[in-house]
Amino acid sequence: MTPLQKHRIKYQPTLPKALGKNLVFKGNGSTSSLGNKKEIKEKFPKTFGRPLLHPSEGEPQLLKALKVGVVFSGGQAAGGHNVISGLFDALKSLHRECQLIGFLGGPSGIIDGKTLELSEDLLAKYRNQGGFDLIGSGRTKIETEEQLEKSIEVFKKLLLDGVVIIGGDDSNTNAAVLAEYALSKGCKTKVIGVPKTIDGDLKNDFVDISFGFHTACNTYAEMIGNIARDSSSAKKYTHFIKLMGRSASHIALECALLTQPNMTLIGEEIAEKKMTLKDVATSLSDLIEKRGNQGKNYGVILIPEGMIEFIPEMKTLIGELNTLLSEGKDEKALSLDAKKTFEFLPKDIAQQLLLDRDPHGNVQVSHIQTEMLLSTLVKEELKKRSGFKGKFNPLHHFFGYEGRAALPTNFDATYCYSLGHIAAHLIQGGHTGYMSAVCHLSKPPSEWEICAIPITSLMNLETRKGKEKPVIRKALVDLKGAPYKFFERNRIKWMEEDNYLFPGPIQFEGDSSLTDTPPKSLLI
Amino acid sequence: MTPLQKHRIKYQPTLPKALGKNLVFKGNGSTSSLGNKKEIKEKFPKTFGRPLLHPSEGEPQLLKALKVGVVFSGGQAAGGHNVISGLFDALKSLHRECQLIGFLGGPSGIIDGKTLELSEDLLAKYRNQGGFDLIGSGRTKIETEEQLEKSIEVFKKLLLDGVVIIGGDDSNTNAAVLAEYALSKGCKTKVIGVPKTIDGDLKNDFVDISFGFHTACNTYAEMIGNIARDSSSAKKYTHFIKLMGRSASHIALECALLTQPNMTLIGEEIAEKKMTLKDVATSLSDLIEKRGNQGKNYGVILIPEGMIEFIPEMKTLIGELNTLLSEGKDEKALSLDAKKTFEFLPKDIAQQLLLDRDPHGNVQVSHIQTEMLLSTLVKEELKKRSGFKGKFNPLHHFFGYEGRAALPTNFDATYCYSLGHIAAHLIQGGHTGYMSAVCHLSKPPSEWEICAIPITSLMNLETRKGKEKPVIRKALVDLKGAPYKFFERNRIKWMEEDNYLFPGPIQFEGDSSLTDTPPKSLLI
Repeated sequence: MTPLQKHRIKYQPTLPKALGKNLVFKGNGSTSSLGNKKEIKEKFPKTFGRPLLHPSEGEPQLLKALKVGVVFSGGQAAGGHNVISGLFDALKSLHRECQLIGFLGGPSGIIDGKTLELSEDLLAKYRNQGGFDLIGSGRTKIETEEQLEKSIEVFKKLLLDGVVIIGGDDSNTNAAVLAEYALSKGCKTKVIGVPKTIDGDLKNDFVDISFGFHTACNTYAEMIGNIARDSSSAKKYTHFIKLMGRSASHIALECALLTQPNMTLIGEEIAEKKMTLKDVATSLSDLIEKRGNQGKNYGVILIPEGMIEFIPEMKTLIGELNTLLSEGKDEKALSLDAKKTFEFLPKDIAQQLLLDRDPHGNVQVSHIQTEMLLSTLVKEELKKRSGFKGKFNPLHHFFGYEGRAALPTNFDATYCYSLGHIAAHLIQGGHTGYMSAVCHLSKPPSEWEICAIPITSLMNLETRKGKEKPVIRKALVDLKGAPYKFFERNRIKWMEEDNYLFPGPIQFEGDSSLTDTPPKSLLI
Repeated sequence: MTPLQKHRIKYQPTLPKALGKNLVFKGNGSTSSLGNKKEIKEKFPKTFGRPLLHPSEGEPQLLKALKVGVVFSGGQAAGGHNVISGLFDALKSLHRECQLIGFLGGPSGIIDGKTLELSEDLLAKYRNQGGFDLIGSGRTKIETEEQLEKSIEVFKKLLLDGVVIIGGDDSNTNAAVLAEYALSKGCKTKVIGVPKTIDGDLKNDFVDISFGFHTACNTYAEMIGNIARDSSSAKKYTHFIKLMGRSASHIALECALLTQPNMTLIGEEIAEKKMTLKDVATSLSDLIEKRGNQGKNYGVILIPEGMIEFIPEMKTLIGELNTLLSEGKDEKALSLDAKKTFEFLPKDIAQQLLLDRDPHGNVQVSHIQTEMLLSTLVKEELKKRSGFKGKFNPLHHFFGYEGRAALPTNFDATYCYSLGHIAAHLIQGGHTGYMSAVCHLSKPPSEWEICAIPITSLMNLETRKGKEKPVIRKALVDLKGAPYKFFERNRIKWMEEDNYLFPGPIQFEGDSSLTDTPPKSLLI
């Protein structure tokens, strides 16, 4: 272990006051779903409509020792180990004989019953540490009747009182499905979800942000700031930086607020304005021309990973290609419009679209090197502009894996520790199909409020692989929200002047203004 | 400014005890050059052979106000601004009326006389900050008679007592040339070099390491550690990480010591063992096969930027291509051996070699995507191996610009502040053609020792653009040195087991084991 890892082990996250002694969760009334009430209710007859739960002081009661399972589902997010340590500590504080069982390698560990009993000694090395390596993770979904049945059998065999699923929107949907299924089969195991994803697209009225977002954004912002400082010192490169984050542009927006680069593309804005690829390339070229003509042959541009899917013509092209390629046809059979888009693409990117396909034969959107695509289009555009007197030397970066498994910030470490505690109390209270939630995260941790959200209340129907499915609605960047509005008000200034911020590396000790800042999007 | 930037401004670097009051530099005897004594002496008749200088307590003397210029030369390295603030503070402590002038945009600022007077107010915002943006930098070399003459004219016009050139090996060679030229023209301006480069290839008996190396390596190590943690959590990707650092593999070696990845290629070792590209791909494939067959379908591999130049056959191929392309011929005219190498390359890399040329028509070695080249060769090799039962999913990264302009570590901030002080005292003492040096950097800063090295003593003749030139000999990784030996002893273990270290982000405050560690290569 490195000195910093050892040092972080000793960090003691603050618990919100709301997580006091004798806590019970209570709720009144009922909830609905975000949409398609009838259909969601039909799919979740036993768990639909349950009330939102708030903490209240409970009666001291004789507690029995609980046995609880926990699993990571999907990509890493910093703080995952603290959800587990929070869950562990809360269970042990409820009853010394409580047991915590980890499912190995993600949801497939549930189906196959692959487990590891988690002890204080084992957990000790993982407190406040990054990664999901204590029990691993995976992307298997528990969807088919057979998978559901196997899972319930495992729950029964292990005599689990509860299972905590730490995952993103799909994994929390999965938690709701499992909760419903368990009830329908008379299985006593309660299923609780915990909102995890660096992408920031799992949020709602009660979840300000999912965990891992803060650490990921601050890690990327460190690098972006360093590159911006390099750029404004060397004065000769335009850096195109693509950022992980799937469809939504939350990470790009947060990083823009943290570093103030010259331009940040926001997929949701591109979609709303129905911009074409050419429009995007034109606006980038305008920026680079303007700066270049002022003698500023450098700059920093942020590009969200999912941007390409927000461009209507690209969506059409990719859709058509998927159909054609699966029918053994090629790009010659594209519609006129799609062909036009295809021909507008730089040759190597077009080639990549045809060749790089996933096991189902689909174009791999996430593999498209958007940063390269855009800089190539800009290069071609600038060549045509006689008014451009500057120089254009693009460099490309992609930040993603660097920020998922990082040492969690104090914010994420503390947030996750609370999420774990809440999950323990929910299981103890016999609640199922709920998501642990902490609100008012922009306040100091002791003032954070806690609640539990019926997962069905976050659902609507969406088409997945041609079928209508109940899913948690993904939160995209709200173009009317304060963070985007702040960005919109300031971006002209950031374009023309150099207003770069250099956040530097995440700090864990010292002044609270350096160590305990929540995501900037929450503060605006 | 971000909170961390503001906080760093207040950091006060410790000065070594040796930099006490009434300091004068003294030396006895004479020095030679590293090689080609006769030729170097001929080229530097006035500055050759000067003694190594050590600090001693001087007589209190009446000091006059000095006027000194300072310039950044070449790529960024963290701490540059602290060389300037150290220089400034030392000058002001010698005499309140001293003046410090920055040359703008690198050595071209000397030739063109573009300057900025540096005041306490201006410097205040740059103390302990990254980047070179206070005065900018550039890659112009002062080489021709005309450039030298112009520079001397500027020095005379500005009435400079001294000029400090903050740069790498070539820039320090330039400092020696300027020092000699000034003396030969009766110009009183003293020229002092400061050893800067993240690459770590400017070191010798008295320079343990150049500044910027520590911050760059620790920034890369943070990212590598994060990726390793992600890799060992997701268990499905092999990460090929290329690291900046020009020819020498110092950065790769230091990062290997800091993070213990599964494999680190060391260019110097590849050259010594006369490995072919196929040999390198084979050893990587062996590693991936072995781990894959143990169920470990993941890993982390570090690749130095300059590796490709250490492979004899690649050197030959690139050399031949440069000649052929400049003669308007193409790859068909390659020698049999070179053709064989060319045909072994993946098609897109071969294509890149032909198309991507610098303004002189040369193949752009630094643009070769070595990380992609190697993973492609490994993929092809593994396909042929029936014994390979694992999976191989490579991901590629390149870290470089992220680490050059970062906030300097306490080590680099302190080191640079001392280097600036030494430069001031050397100028005050009337010394020229010297390099500021701090030794014993593995000790606490107060115990660091200081000296001044005649730059000519570091020189030999090397062929540059077909001509023999006096240059500072680049320090490659010493395959008999302790850091490499440590790496060699441990690497088998790191290959098979997962011994990843996760250094985390650079810390500035708190426990000294977190904040004040020197480069690991110096501690071993």
